[in-house]
Amino acid sequence: MSLLEETLRAIEPQDASWRAKARERLEQLTMPHWALGRLMNLAEDLAGMTRSMEPPVSKRTLVVMAGDHGVVAEGVSKYPQEVTPQMVANFVAGGAGINALARQAGAQVAVVDMGVAVDLGALTAEGKILSRRIGPGTGNIARGPAMTREEAVRCLEGGIEIASGFADSTDLFGAGDMGIGNTTPSAAIVAAIRSLPAAEVTGRGTGIDDARLANKIAVVERALEVNRPDATDGVDVLAKVGGFEIGGLAGFILGAAAKRRPVLVDGFISTAGALIALALAPAAADYMIASHRSAEAGHRHALEHLGKEPLLDLGLRLGEGTGAALAMSLVGAAARLLTDVATFGEAAVSEADR
Amino acid sequence: MSLLEETLRAIEPQDASWRAKARERLEQLTMPHWALGRLMNLAEDLAGMTRSMEPPVSKRTLVVMAGDHGVVAEGVSKYPQEVTPQMVANFVAGGAGINALARQAGAQVAVVDMGVAVDLGALTAEGKILSRRIGPGTGNIARGPAMTREEAVRCLEGGIEIASGFADSTDLFGAGDMGIGNTTPSAAIVAAIRSLPAAEVTGRGTGIDDARLANKIAVVERALEVNRPDATDGVDVLAKVGGFEIGGLAGFILGAAAKRRPVLVDGFISTAGALIALALAPAAADYMIASHRSAEAGHRHALEHLGKEPLLDLGLRLGEGTGAALAMSLVGAAARLLTDVATFGEAAVSEADR
Repeated sequence: MSLLEETLRAIEPQDASWRAKARERLEQLTMPHWALGRLMNLAEDLAGMTRSMEPPVSKRTLVVMAGDHGVVAEGVSKYPQEVTPQMVANFVAGGAGINALARQAGAQVAVVDMGVAVDLGALTAEGKILSRRIGPGTGNIARGPAMTREEAVRCLEGGIEIASGFADSTDLFGAGDMGIGNTTPSAAIVAAIRSLPAAEVTGRGTGIDDARLANKIAVVERALEVNRPDATDGVDVLAKVGGFEIGGLAGFILGAAAKRRPVLVDGFISTAGALIALALAPAAADYMIASHRSAEAGHRHALEHLGKEPLLDLGLRLGEGTGAALAMSLVGAAARLLTDVATFGEAAVSEADR
Repeated sequence: MSLLEETLRAIEPQDASWRAKARERLEQLTMPHWALGRLMNLAEDLAGMTRSMEPPVSKRTLVVMAGDHGVVAEGVSKYPQEVTPQMVANFVAGGAGINALARQAGAQVAVVDMGVAVDLGALTAEGKILSRRIGPGTGNIARGPAMTREEAVRCLEGGIEIASGFADSTDLFGAGDMGIGNTTPSAAIVAAIRSLPAAEVTGRGTGIDDARLANKIAVVERALEVNRPDATDGVDVLAKVGGFEIGGLAGFILGAAAKRRPVLVDGFISTAGALIALALAPAAADYMIASHRSAEAGHRHALEHLGKEPLLDLGLRLGEGTGAALAMSLVGAAARLLTDVATFGEAAVSEADR
């Protein structure tokens, strides 16, 4: 059995009995019933994911998957492709947005080269980044598939290996991305899986103007027409209109779910990866936590498909895992509801009349 | 000059030049323009509040003001008044929701007796809580004023003293409340200041049913009719339809603003206190950060009056400062955008084309 098949089979839903145990305690905490709202729902989820009334969430790893995209030849981004490796260098130097927010969250940052256009072998050799490199950027999805089916499986298995490698030293994962042009394949993935017109899921990415947005929508339409991805087959969608880092993210999420680790999904690109993961293993959704609602237009459709309400809505549109890092402290807070708060009985506080 | 007058005069708006300096750097960070959205607005605010490009936010104090309310005689709450001191004891023991979330935020919790119905002198004598006690609960606002004007000023000055006492050891404040029945005076304050009908600002508090909600709305209406608070006079509104802990919160926020410390305002009751503070010193709003949107119905009206968009919207309705504690990590993250993220120039990352 392949690593992918093995991983898909290992993913089990949250445990209903641990959820019930957690709910029973949460309903007895010294506060009006369920007065901490969605934080309590999250606490219940954590118990169901980790099979524990003391869900461990303190060891945190934020994985940033990087890759390049042939579709940038169509003028879909306002930044040049050289920014992908420049930002990888920035991550390694600790000067990017994700470094600041991961530091705040007490999370380590691991960068993975899934297929940046230029050679990052030196950084890999020095141990500064990890590599599950498929190739120097994907094919141009406006003209053909992003990658072969075999490469798509390799992306997924690379992501699974990354999650497995960190699982022993990680309680809580975050999933982030870097790749100039990657809102375009993400839009194509969401359009394909949700059967939505390109215009509804395609946004301004890093901040393109109206003319470029119109072009980008046309590019997504062409990518769907040329490739005709099969929405019921996650590997096919990834191969035809995806990206190496998006496949890496999908595999990473599957790997986290197989290891029963909660994984914070970041913005539009990470959620596109989550949609691929969901198509391959519906139960993987039980381990995903939607961290924030991105300013990118298509994100709400992607979140709807996951059936998740995000924790934050702060107009973020950076990626890198920044929303996932921000939400980590909320996950920490949710876990503390189970471990740190007394019940009415324990604290001798009077209950409400009936 | 009284402490209150002195404090009101000491409150100056945010510094425009520090805001501009911060904005200039934030616009140069290695990310698409303003890609971290409202987190960047918050970073700009922090620079304007603290007059610093490295806004200090690590030393954190969460103040919980406690008081009782004569209006509970009207059956507005489903919990008995004895829960107020029981919860104070729970705070002291470290077993309440706020203790868990403050621990997560790295904040100390200070509890202040502003006027709980029973004697808490033993806890005060042991140094476990602070006291700026006005009396054993307010008058019943459905039949007369909550307190005298002189008592209202003493509440405010008590809160100012608390803020001043912690200012040297605190970078970031949070404001929380405890007091059975206190959504009723809070609704009356918001109705008075916003000129809104009681039905629009009165909610279910700890979770009352439809019949009790109808009664509670009638009680708020009566409180406004009987007392006729002058919306242009914050002290009058506080004295007539407020509460001791609400006045303490208003003073605390004023004291924080005078010391140029950012203060996270929690939910409905804290925001009612913030509205009193705003009526006394409009510039105090420059130091307030709205932490979350409460599930309590009237909170959105109170936030609109402050002109603040809250950071979180998680269906919380507990009070105690829990939303303020949760939002502290977001404030920490915002400050790091100024200190930890490299600019395009510093990191040699290519900028967007124009």
